[in-house]
Amino acid sequence: MAGTNRTGEIMRGGPAIILVEPQLGENIGMVARAMANFGLSDLRLVNPRDGWPNERAVAAASRADHVIEAARLFDTIEEAAADLTFLLATTARARDSHKTVLGPRDAAAALRARIDVGQGAGILFGRERTGLENHEVDLADTIVTFPVNPAFASLNLAQAVLLMSYEWMNTTGETAPRFQAPEQVPAEKDELYRLFDHLEGALDKANYFHPPAKREAMIHILRGMLTRPGFSEGEVRTLRGVVRTFERSMGRAGAEE
Amino acid sequence: MAGTNRTGEIMRGGPAIILVEPQLGENIGMVARAMANFGLSDLRLVNPRDGWPNERAVAAASRADHVIEAARLFDTIEEAAADLTFLLATTARARDSHKTVLGPRDAAAALRARIDVGQGAGILFGRERTGLENHEVDLADTIVTFPVNPAFASLNLAQAVLLMSYEWMNTTGETAPRFQAPEQVPAEKDELYRLFDHLEGALDKANYFHPPAKREAMIHILRGMLTRPGFSEGEVRTLRGVVRTFERSMGRAGAEE
Repeated sequence: MAGTNRTGEIMRGGPAIILVEPQLGENIGMVARAMANFGLSDLRLVNPRDGWPNERAVAAASRADHVIEAARLFDTIEEAAADLTFLLATTARARDSHKTVLGPRDAAAALRARIDVGQGAGILFGRERTGLENHEVDLADTIVTFPVNPAFASLNLAQAVLLMSYEWMNTTGETAPRFQAPEQVPAEKDELYRLFDHLEGALDKANYFHPPAKREAMIHILRGMLTRPGFSEGEVRTLRGVVRTFERSMGRAGAEE
Repeated sequence: MAGTNRTGEIMRGGPAIILVEPQLGENIGMVARAMANFGLSDLRLVNPRDGWPNERAVAAASRADHVIEAARLFDTIEEAAADLTFLLATTARARDSHKTVLGPRDAAAALRARIDVGQGAGILFGRERTGLENHEVDLADTIVTFPVNPAFASLNLAQAVLLMSYEWMNTTGETAPRFQAPEQVPAEKDELYRLFDHLEGALDKANYFHPPAKREAMIHILRGMLTRPGFSEGEVRTLRGVVRTFERSMGRAGAEE
């Protein structure tokens, strides 16, 4: 608008691109360019290896410096995704996960459906070498994978962001039917992650995780169950009420033991 | 074939990628990788600036050396496209041309239609800096352009090839993700209903439903949450374990009260 907005008014409001522990500044810059090409601007960085700001990222971003300058830094995925209601995780390989797996096109449609009704949505991208860890994928609702040749799958970080950004752009002005917005207000990730902590803390107190070696696997199962349904705000509140109730009952036990 | 074909038999027969006077060997290597990612293998070079073969291209191609090694060199576009029946020209800007202009997706469908009936088809990509000249575009049947943000259009050569290769892959009909979430045995309703009873019983003991008049509405919410995700048998067992754990903790409270 009025020539001051380089990305153009129509280009605002796309999904957040969340890079988890990106290693090379150059790649962050290339990601910014890929985003700018397709009108995305919300870049979030979780613990970039070489710190932030990063000169190499700025250099590689070239004219996409508006994306780099607006990038926000976070310590954890939980914080980076706190205000979102829908979170995708990009992965290159099969996971021991029961989440829905979408291709980029369907993933973009799913993002569009949320964003069009004013909800925040984003996509997690893992480290250049090793991608996302399982416990990080657990924090997302749905998995995106790219239809690459299984015998030669070497998409780099910026290319993966490029494809998702391209598919996002393809959803603009799409005439295809969009799925109905849920009537319920979906929970923001922050609320969901606090539920994780609350439940797991209560289960710790109740000695649920034993033997301790199984703790991680059990948490993986529980978080998989809690991310899949896309719980609403009210539902997360209800679940926290359930956990609180049990805690209180146990607390009486603890107090009197 | 017989394990020697790294890209796999299913991946053969895609369109030719024709680079017109590419300038940097690195970019040719990156193009080869983008092609290999999506199963393309027919790379044709028209007068690469730094000659051919090119060490930097080989280095940048990394494991896509099968594409680089099979690349063919031509003096003119006419020769490079001689055996094709359908030729697309990629351009970034509007042309004084009356050719059809397609987006990448429709362009890939047009390629597929020819290739599926045994015709040769290909895509022209211009020089990194200046693209294709008008007289070169004239040699093609149809124009492809990318839906980039007009205010920030900086797709590089390898990215343009990546997007076309990706869209080619999308036409293979394998739009479904290439891995499926592991099969889960869905819970039978009986198991689910026993979970309802178990949870609600535990919540009764913990005095969750108060005032009692709200009990019915609260159960309605809880059951709605537990039916929506389509939990598996194992997941229902996990939830029962959670409830049992809390019960046991409360039981200790009760026993000692």
